[in-house]
Amino acid sequence: MLDALFKPRSVAVIGASTKEYSIGNTVIKNLQHFGFTGPIYPINPKAAEICGLKVYKSLLDIPGPVDSAQIAIPNRLVPAAVEECGKKGVKSVIINTSGFSELGEEGIRLQKEILAHARHYGMRVMGPNCQGIINTDPAVRAYCDFTFTYPEPGYISIVALSGGVGGLIMQALFDLGIGMRMYASNGNACDVSIAEIVKYWGDDDGCRAIIVYTEGFSNPKEFLEAARTVAHKKPVLGMKAGRTESGAQAASSHTGSLASVDTSTELIFEKTGILSFQDEAEMVRASMAFASQPIPKGNRVGIITNTGGPAVIATDALVAGGLQLAKLSAKSTAKLKEVQYPEASLGNPLDLMATGGPAQWQNALEVLMEDDGVDCISINAVTPLYVDVVANAKVIADASRLGKKPIVMNFMTDSTVKRFREAQKILQEGGVPCYPNPSEAARALTELYKYSRLQARDIGQPEVFAGVDVAKAKAIIADAQKAGRTILPATDVYSIFEAFGIPVAPWKVVSNAAEAVAAADAIGYPVVVKVESEKISHKSDMGGVFINLKDAAAVRSAVEDMGNRLSSYGELKYFIQKFLPGGLELIVGSTVSRNLGHLVMFGLGGIYVEVLKDVIFKVTPVTKVEAQEMLSSLKTAALLDGVRGKKGVDKNRVIDIIQRVSYLLTELPVIQEMDINPLMAFEDAVYALDGRIRI
Amino acid sequence: MLDALFKPRSVAVIGASTKEYSIGNTVIKNLQHFGFTGPIYPINPKAAEICGLKVYKSLLDIPGPVDSAQIAIPNRLVPAAVEECGKKGVKSVIINTSGFSELGEEGIRLQKEILAHARHYGMRVMGPNCQGIINTDPAVRAYCDFTFTYPEPGYISIVALSGGVGGLIMQALFDLGIGMRMYASNGNACDVSIAEIVKYWGDDDGCRAIIVYTEGFSNPKEFLEAARTVAHKKPVLGMKAGRTESGAQAASSHTGSLASVDTSTELIFEKTGILSFQDEAEMVRASMAFASQPIPKGNRVGIITNTGGPAVIATDALVAGGLQLAKLSAKSTAKLKEVQYPEASLGNPLDLMATGGPAQWQNALEVLMEDDGVDCISINAVTPLYVDVVANAKVIADASRLGKKPIVMNFMTDSTVKRFREAQKILQEGGVPCYPNPSEAARALTELYKYSRLQARDIGQPEVFAGVDVAKAKAIIADAQKAGRTILPATDVYSIFEAFGIPVAPWKVVSNAAEAVAAADAIGYPVVVKVESEKISHKSDMGGVFINLKDAAAVRSAVEDMGNRLSSYGELKYFIQKFLPGGLELIVGSTVSRNLGHLVMFGLGGIYVEVLKDVIFKVTPVTKVEAQEMLSSLKTAALLDGVRGKKGVDKNRVIDIIQRVSYLLTELPVIQEMDINPLMAFEDAVYALDGRIRI
Repeated sequence: MLDALFKPRSVAVIGASTKEYSIGNTVIKNLQHFGFTGPIYPINPKAAEICGLKVYKSLLDIPGPVDSAQIAIPNRLVPAAVEECGKKGVKSVIINTSGFSELGEEGIRLQKEILAHARHYGMRVMGPNCQGIINTDPAVRAYCDFTFTYPEPGYISIVALSGGVGGLIMQALFDLGIGMRMYASNGNACDVSIAEIVKYWGDDDGCRAIIVYTEGFSNPKEFLEAARTVAHKKPVLGMKAGRTESGAQAASSHTGSLASVDTSTELIFEKTGILSFQDEAEMVRASMAFASQPIPKGNRVGIITNTGGPAVIATDALVAGGLQLAKLSAKSTAKLKEVQYPEASLGNPLDLMATGGPAQWQNALEVLMEDDGVDCISINAVTPLYVDVVANAKVIADASRLGKKPIVMNFMTDSTVKRFREAQKILQEGGVPCYPNPSEAARALTELYKYSRLQARDIGQPEVFAGVDVAKAKAIIADAQKAGRTILPATDVYSIFEAFGIPVAPWKVVSNAAEAVAAADAIGYPVVVKVESEKISHKSDMGGVFINLKDAAAVRSAVEDMGNRLSSYGELKYFIQKFLPGGLELIVGSTVSRNLGHLVMFGLGGIYVEVLKDVIFKVTPVTKVEAQEMLSSLKTAALLDGVRGKKGVDKNRVIDIIQRVSYLLTELPVIQEMDINPLMAFEDAVYALDGRIRI
Repeated sequence: MLDALFKPRSVAVIGASTKEYSIGNTVIKNLQHFGFTGPIYPINPKAAEICGLKVYKSLLDIPGPVDSAQIAIPNRLVPAAVEECGKKGVKSVIINTSGFSELGEEGIRLQKEILAHARHYGMRVMGPNCQGIINTDPAVRAYCDFTFTYPEPGYISIVALSGGVGGLIMQALFDLGIGMRMYASNGNACDVSIAEIVKYWGDDDGCRAIIVYTEGFSNPKEFLEAARTVAHKKPVLGMKAGRTESGAQAASSHTGSLASVDTSTELIFEKTGILSFQDEAEMVRASMAFASQPIPKGNRVGIITNTGGPAVIATDALVAGGLQLAKLSAKSTAKLKEVQYPEASLGNPLDLMATGGPAQWQNALEVLMEDDGVDCISINAVTPLYVDVVANAKVIADASRLGKKPIVMNFMTDSTVKRFREAQKILQEGGVPCYPNPSEAARALTELYKYSRLQARDIGQPEVFAGVDVAKAKAIIADAQKAGRTILPATDVYSIFEAFGIPVAPWKVVSNAAEAVAAADAIGYPVVVKVESEKISHKSDMGGVFINLKDAAAVRSAVEDMGNRLSSYGELKYFIQKFLPGGLELIVGSTVSRNLGHLVMFGLGGIYVEVLKDVIFKVTPVTKVEAQEMLSSLKTAALLDGVRGKKGVDKNRVIDIIQRVSYLLTELPVIQEMDINPLMAFEDAVYALDGRIRI
């Protein structure tokens, strides 16, 4: 529970200052200006009064209890101050001071000291090197932060790794004229994490949507768990910066994180149902719609406009975002005809013409609200001088207040004209999300629709497979570890696959030509013969692989040939496997993602992965729904169903294998890398033809 | 020349009115309010005075000459008014009245009548059903329009098919606090076209960038020619709405155009070097940068920031847009060290820290301006309370005034604070394009870079090929026309290909088995044999195709078999062709685009075209540079160079064939559709293996 942090009943400011623009001065002024509902205790050994408040020489002099202490003193003095907070019984501290883990060894040491004190006294720490928190709740009005934007109460809460970005998002909401619920920027995040804050806001009934800005997570698993719970309850809008290599480097230089492109954050967003954005302005605009509008029940949109072109632009953007234009019922059209002007265009977009007044707007809105074939409403409106735009605005605001179907509005006006401003205010009070541009308005609506799909999506639980011999696989790995191997030999790889029920083309390892022929006879021709020796790593290049051997003579000759040529490598073994050409080559692979576990990769092999990079990643454990998504979201998905007279492949079996690979990785976390390449898929069977495991 | 329209020395308003908000009243007020520099003549048979101006009963009563007449009277009265304008010697008319071609037959008739009068008297017509024009030039100040946004003089001119979109773009520029040069929305465009306006602005030295909004062109060729000239002189920013099928339908319902997705407009943008946008707000933001900043000479960007996260976001967007982070020289780093604070981060992004004052900003800007490894500058700046943001703004504005390298700025501030507003004003006056969001600022800069590439791109002239026998091809087509054929037989198709120097796999048409064997012997085995009969359209399905015939016996048996089985179809012929498997299957095709000519399509055949839709279109005539672009812009371009041990193909030959197809289409405009599928490409040769021509 983070109540003491976000809903403090009293705040002490350690490092309170009389110096204008200093943090210790600004925080006090902000608390006062914002109307903090509890007592503010400035702490300063020298001053007597700051901002008209009595100053305490020490925290311990404060008569009452302190929920939250804000610390803005030089970094070396912070650990002692935190310890004193503990002694006083303070519940949470916000440390604005910088110069900790972001500044090398000495800073890391100081930060550890802080954390140790906090743990000892059961205190929570926000920061260090952070901005702090804001809570606009009229019962609290806590502005424990040194920024200077004063938001109105609202429904959107913002948490940002970067105070700069957090501040600009807060400012953007302010500029849009919509309120904010709570704000947090937690800097070095030595204790309170973004995950915890998101979870806390998930339970905050006053918060309707959460904005998360990050450049990666130090504990992605914790965030994954938190986001999974919260994103089903309310929309979480996420943006991860540092997507490009240069961007990741830029991020690392200001946060001290590792400089590598982290793809897992966006995979976490996807897995947990977070709406992912690449543009902060787009995210803010979408949040405005979430703050006041209901989630649509489907993708059928009705467009009302009083101007031509902007509705065309909106249509393009709506359709591109997955919505489709609703077909109005005959009843709807009849009702429209009763009230609309004869020159109006009664299709969808429904063009009321610039002359449309309140009667026409009310009729149009009523009709779309009542038509069961319409899930949401997109409005494009200019403000002609000759119509009563204020009355029109009232009609639209009233429709929005019904909360029946989401409305998003592109309001094109000149706000230097008084009555247009008045209309704007009415729309705002009615909770109508208004955007000056048709594309932007339309895209905000498509985000509401996307969230309706995310909410409906249940990825389910990972399957647990019967008949899997985990112990056997673990024993094979333990042996390999004992032997100091990092790359497992083919026999181990195939045995592990088989232990997890991953079908492998029939195979046997033999020592000589006679055994090879016997094995090939048993497996059935044609076969592949490969040399097996720990000393030979690039078999193909050494003439150690023979494919499509059609009879015993060919097998014998291949083994004898290798035996002679490669005898200098010591004792050789031979790997005999069924040759299975003609299927569709797939690839299933995996890599470890720092602090998160494994990612599973799936795609088509050969040129598809090499040229088109057409592969899909998911975070383990991968559920059946997710495995299905991996198949269907390939650009080349149609090839799995068969094209140009070619038969499709057994997709259910592929989906099963992806899940088994995920299960394998979860049970054998020591695996650093693995792949099945190719996984050869046929209409009625799927086989691993080659595989690799690195531990 | 459109001077009388855009720079009228006198304006008459036919349909001048005393009624507030009527067009005939608003236009007069707008001219007055905007400070039109010439006389305004209200025409109204009844009123004596309107807006304090003397009213004329008839145009012919006006004492002086009239450059432009604005017409806002009922549609039926317009033709007579236009005729009277002709008699008076008016040079151009703007017709606001609607109810013409957009409203069916009677309207079309009236519009034709107007045009006839105009042609007779040598007058130019803007509209009908249009908003009109605005010219902010202090020497003119013409507001011949009934909208209500009053732009300051500036450098961006806007032309829009839709007045609604034109108005919102004008408003967006106004809201950004930047000026506008000229504005035009020409509605039904019975005479003056968007192409003419763009061409006119191309010669207007006061115009630095042109914004074009359209939903398609009635005369795309005219626009193509105009854009080609202008886009090399100054940036033209274009947006084409109605990209989706629903969008095209929405466009058709308000403009009466054909409801089909028109892909050619964006191909024209591409061919002529117009910057294409899908988002009007994005286009407006980019125009702001073009209005004041020079074009970068390369793609190396230096980032200056005083906050962490926003620079990370900017980096992502800059890199995604094709820019790369400049590596600062050792000299630059040394110079930075002299002035920057020790906690500053002297890489790229160059983080001056929030505490950076005018000395630090000036030093950073100087260093980046002087470093030859930097082509453009991206700034992210917050406005901390404790620094002199006004002084910082002055330094940045001064750097922008140098006009040496483009600067684009993400300015994150609270404009309710007076000194922040002051800083904003200083930046604006210095021509620094400021955007509140890092992504948006960065993308504006990437548009400057994109234009630098478009400006440098010279597609050259289409090649004229020697040795092409156009006459022969025309004769074949003439014969087919005479015979009433629309689909040409294979022999005609191949003969036409050969006449244009498009290599066809060796072939011969024969009548019987003996001739077939002789032909196959001459061509060389293996061969393909196909039955030829106008009565048989689906040869494969009828057993009329035999591939990979390896000797004379096989050819004889195939021909005899078909002769027996298909004898009921009358006299049969047989098409013998060299069998050439194993190459890379390409496809070159073409379709006719309404009023524009042909589009040429190129891609890889088979699954690439069917599943991946990986094809590129260009408008004919296709130059060598464009043909090269068609190859390189395929997603699967790497396959042309060879992958996985497969050899690449003879790209020069493919590029040559694409140009020859383009030449063929230009010379034979009667062709409605053609394709070469497959065009089989090898390392050292390329052959058309099958083709189709529809006339």
